[in-house]
Amino acid sequence: MVDSCGECIQCKRGVEQYCQKGASFTYNSTEQDKQTPTYGGYSDHVVVTENFVVHVPKNLDLCAAAPLLCAGVTTYSPLRYWGVKKGSRVGVVGLGGLGHMAVKLASAMGAVVTVFTTSESKKAAAKDLGAHHVVISKDPAEMKQAAGTLDVIIDTVGSSHDLQPYLNTLDVDGKLALVGMPETNHPPFDAKRMISMRQCVGGSNIAGMPETQELLNFCGEHNITATVEKINIDQINEAYERMLKSDVKYRFVIDIASLKQ
Amino acid sequence: MVDSCGECIQCKRGVEQYCQKGASFTYNSTEQDKQTPTYGGYSDHVVVTENFVVHVPKNLDLCAAAPLLCAGVTTYSPLRYWGVKKGSRVGVVGLGGLGHMAVKLASAMGAVVTVFTTSESKKAAAKDLGAHHVVISKDPAEMKQAAGTLDVIIDTVGSSHDLQPYLNTLDVDGKLALVGMPETNHPPFDAKRMISMRQCVGGSNIAGMPETQELLNFCGEHNITATVEKINIDQINEAYERMLKSDVKYRFVIDIASLKQ
Repeated sequence: MVDSCGECIQCKRGVEQYCQKGASFTYNSTEQDKQTPTYGGYSDHVVVTENFVVHVPKNLDLCAAAPLLCAGVTTYSPLRYWGVKKGSRVGVVGLGGLGHMAVKLASAMGAVVTVFTTSESKKAAAKDLGAHHVVISKDPAEMKQAAGTLDVIIDTVGSSHDLQPYLNTLDVDGKLALVGMPETNHPPFDAKRMISMRQCVGGSNIAGMPETQELLNFCGEHNITATVEKINIDQINEAYERMLKSDVKYRFVIDIASLKQ
Repeated sequence: MVDSCGECIQCKRGVEQYCQKGASFTYNSTEQDKQTPTYGGYSDHVVVTENFVVHVPKNLDLCAAAPLLCAGVTTYSPLRYWGVKKGSRVGVVGLGGLGHMAVKLASAMGAVVTVFTTSESKKAAAKDLGAHHVVISKDPAEMKQAAGTLDVIIDTVGSSHDLQPYLNTLDVDGKLALVGMPETNHPPFDAKRMISMRQCVGGSNIAGMPETQELLNFCGEHNITATVEKINIDQINEAYERMLKSDVKYRFVIDIASLKQ
């Protein structure tokens, strides 16, 4: 996010991503004139208004810190919004760019973290990132055992999927936060169960500027960055193909200096 | 609700309706032995454990106070859970037994109340109950005008229906609370909108005993009861037929003394 109107109630309370006039995003977006396209981060410099500049703690590697501004804030914000703290029981659905940050952040907040994944092969990786439990979501026995055990779930899956198996793992007052944008909607959920356990399903979109700085400070204190693979600009097509196959641990970061080599 | 285990974490924090072992409800339920059926409220006396007895403020008519223990708590609890206070913008979907209580209670909390109804004929009645605005939900122009204007919606409709028109009336951080139990689930909602405005859909089931007493005290202070039609037991079949046609303002209460007449 690189700009917003700065005057509406959402901007004034520091949630510029929910600007009533529409925030300007880094790419696939326009400046506040609603005409001039924004050209993204594939540049060696970018000019933004001062309110949209953040301080990156000096102990963090800049390359590995880059995805904190996207995958980091996107998972940090709902964890905070839903009150995750020491001892909270947090589930993370999907272990990609967003999911791996959710695990690191929730774990650093003192939560007990359960990762849901379809791949047996990701069990060890999830634990390396700080997960306490890993549940294979295709295994009905494992899912049944997890029923009613969680307070907050961060669902990072970016395509339409059945939320019910995950809702079933929430306890009374449990919240499921969607952070992946699906092209088509998710199937209906069990309203009776939601009512009888006072649960909810919500969404969350990146973070505002104050919370983005808060996340960076939190990462500085806990020495957290994304786990990244740095590539040069000429590797971008290969990286794109690998990304489509989920073959990346866990974010590609392009060294833009390589543009000039 | 007439009993619960009393020992689980939910009972200990006073939300006995979410008892991990299952609460005992007044009817269509069993006692805590999970065998003995409960016989409902169609009696001139009922024996319950002392923790499930509440004090009805003396200024409230007992007949009109009776539905507070169901429609009252069912709507009061989500209003409190989602932080409704003076100036909150509250929507109420459906103007029946539950809906009319939601209007009275939200209005007494100082909220600005919008009622959604399909019937033009209910406009005046909604305003009499304390609603500030009435929106005809079948009218696309009225629904469009209401877009993004609400903080909390209490959806009292007890059958499957499209939530999206109501979700569209929520502002950033808006919450929609389902309190009507549908036989089949509601159609899918727009996940992208939910994410881009940090909204959520949740459920809520009656209230625990401390909050039930709180509701009764609140009603005593604000002199609120349900709007009821008192009937004798021999009118019950006629009342049932009228209820099926939504022809009741807004709850029938049976005078059980009439059993002995």
